[in-house]
Amino acid sequence: MEKSPEMEHPVKAFGWAAKDTTGILSPFKFSRRSTGEHDVQLKVLYCGICHSDLHNAKNDWGFTQYPVVPGHEIVGVVTEIGNKVEKFKVGDKVGVGCLVGSCRECNSCNKDLENYCPKQVLTYGAKDTDGTFTYGGFSDIMVVNEHFVIRWPENLPLDAGAPLMCAGITTYSPLRHYGLDKPGLHIGIVGLGGLGHVGVKFAKAFGAEVTVISTSINKKKEAIEKLGADSFLVSRNEEEMRGAAGTLDGIIDTVSAVHSLSPLLSLLKTDGKLIMVGAPAKPLEVPIFPLLSGRKVVAGSMIGGLKETQEMIDFAAKHNVLPDVEIIPMDYVNTAMERLLKSDVKYRFVIDVKKTLRAE
Amino acid sequence: MEKSPEMEHPVKAFGWAAKDTTGILSPFKFSRRSTGEHDVQLKVLYCGICHSDLHNAKNDWGFTQYPVVPGHEIVGVVTEIGNKVEKFKVGDKVGVGCLVGSCRECNSCNKDLENYCPKQVLTYGAKDTDGTFTYGGFSDIMVVNEHFVIRWPENLPLDAGAPLMCAGITTYSPLRHYGLDKPGLHIGIVGLGGLGHVGVKFAKAFGAEVTVISTSINKKKEAIEKLGADSFLVSRNEEEMRGAAGTLDGIIDTVSAVHSLSPLLSLLKTDGKLIMVGAPAKPLEVPIFPLLSGRKVVAGSMIGGLKETQEMIDFAAKHNVLPDVEIIPMDYVNTAMERLLKSDVKYRFVIDVKKTLRAE
Repeated sequence: MEKSPEMEHPVKAFGWAAKDTTGILSPFKFSRRSTGEHDVQLKVLYCGICHSDLHNAKNDWGFTQYPVVPGHEIVGVVTEIGNKVEKFKVGDKVGVGCLVGSCRECNSCNKDLENYCPKQVLTYGAKDTDGTFTYGGFSDIMVVNEHFVIRWPENLPLDAGAPLMCAGITTYSPLRHYGLDKPGLHIGIVGLGGLGHVGVKFAKAFGAEVTVISTSINKKKEAIEKLGADSFLVSRNEEEMRGAAGTLDGIIDTVSAVHSLSPLLSLLKTDGKLIMVGAPAKPLEVPIFPLLSGRKVVAGSMIGGLKETQEMIDFAAKHNVLPDVEIIPMDYVNTAMERLLKSDVKYRFVIDVKKTLRAE
Repeated sequence: MEKSPEMEHPVKAFGWAAKDTTGILSPFKFSRRSTGEHDVQLKVLYCGICHSDLHNAKNDWGFTQYPVVPGHEIVGVVTEIGNKVEKFKVGDKVGVGCLVGSCRECNSCNKDLENYCPKQVLTYGAKDTDGTFTYGGFSDIMVVNEHFVIRWPENLPLDAGAPLMCAGITTYSPLRHYGLDKPGLHIGIVGLGGLGHVGVKFAKAFGAEVTVISTSINKKKEAIEKLGADSFLVSRNEEEMRGAAGTLDGIIDTVSAVHSLSPLLSLLKTDGKLIMVGAPAKPLEVPIFPLLSGRKVVAGSMIGGLKETQEMIDFAAKHNVLPDVEIIPMDYVNTAMERLLKSDVKYRFVIDVKKTLRAE
């Protein structure tokens, strides 16, 4: 018989979990493994709420195993280290993102691309190498192999910085990998949510001219005045879109809803790249002729490897790239999830876990 | 009033043209401009038949202007040069491909990518800079600006080499541009027609392991024994396709029919690239999740610039990359078009223009 989550490991842990497809989270007792040779135990300080937390809590993708403790934008402080840990000491501030494990020997792992390892272990809702399930950062403590732990830069705020661990690396990595990080390029960001608003900030930090592309004009003022975008396009305004045809070197598309790629491809210059980081549930229609006649690219990217995540967080600290967040207490999480569903947040909720998670 | 094709230029020319949507070609008298300062006049020796000649003759794409003289895989001999021509002398063997003009000053032209110039002039069926229409290589003579003329290598056969001017550069350019030209890569070629069979040969010449992917097993023996492919996959055989999942670095997809890209994306490794060179008339469905989870790329490519076309033809001569052709007389062209429609050719028809085009 399988052991209960509370009994399967020796270290008591506590968090908030969704227990069925209502997605409603409530207090949940479980356990963490004792700190292994290469492990870091950390006390969770802050944890962002990613849209995928909502999808997982409600089993929107059909693979949720309940109870699920979400949270993969984690900032914490080291409380214990294994005897072979080299990178950290007790008291260090650290980050944990979407991954807590990978095979460490495949082609992807050998290229510091653990995020593409077929045996990657997600931070929550996944089977760990010991057969137990992983639980995320809506919890008091975590135990993670140091390879999957990021050093937190001195001057980077612990609360507002948390979303960088997912939203940050998800937009930083494609800008870097696809060569869209050169000063003077003209970059489009589609969608202005958790991912998009950080994408604007990274693209600006790389020295790009940034155009936000959104279905409604509502966010224009804020995109330009607050986030620093250079211009704004309403994707439903055909005249505006035609006027901007052939002007972008690259686009980061953060939208997960099914949408038309044809107008976005029109915005690209020859050799322009449309990079998908949102994951629409259904296939999208791609017109092939624009790909041929402009040698255009449609491609994807998913979070980033650990080495690149460290690079991203150091870059963010150096260039003051910081998500705009609303700090909330743990027991606000269900309201926050409802508001997230309505895109009623600018632009990321971050749970103050340390101050507000109370074991019952 | 516009002048008739026979009267608009001073130099008499003769070829075969389609005159209506039946696509049936018949003898046609027209004219060529006199040789300008930067022009080369050439006598056409051979001209390949590309699938797009068929589409144009029948107005399948809706923009054919009749009468249309097809042909853009042209090999000829220089008969006259303008007084500022630098690259050629009378008697030189030369090639002309899909382009006879471009603006020479846009970003694309400045990067030797005349093939992506918005003002490019196609070899036939297009409005030339002087307002007259262009006529292709199913004709006795041509007059072309030397920039759009390729030096023919000494040892490259004039007849079988002709299809390199379109089918060759169309497959060579994406292999080069997308980094699929490195020895040891594993390359897939989808479709084994005029484009695909040359794609196999270029990929082999670059040192790749080559897998042909086709809807039917019929071409397997020939693909491996004659064209030198290393393996063969039947795209409808799900078990075979599953067995090859994640094995390819890149795929050149030459198929113009609407088809599913999902099975092809499955064949790619992480960071693998699916390059479309066929142009399906309708948008294709692209599943986005595989793009994200494997950082895969769907992209396009269309012929090549003039500098790269010269590089391609020199490479073909050096590495013995030669299309497999069936040489036909001019008056066989309508039968050839019918056979082409049924894919009944291995793998390209080439018209022996010099010997068989007779002015009436």
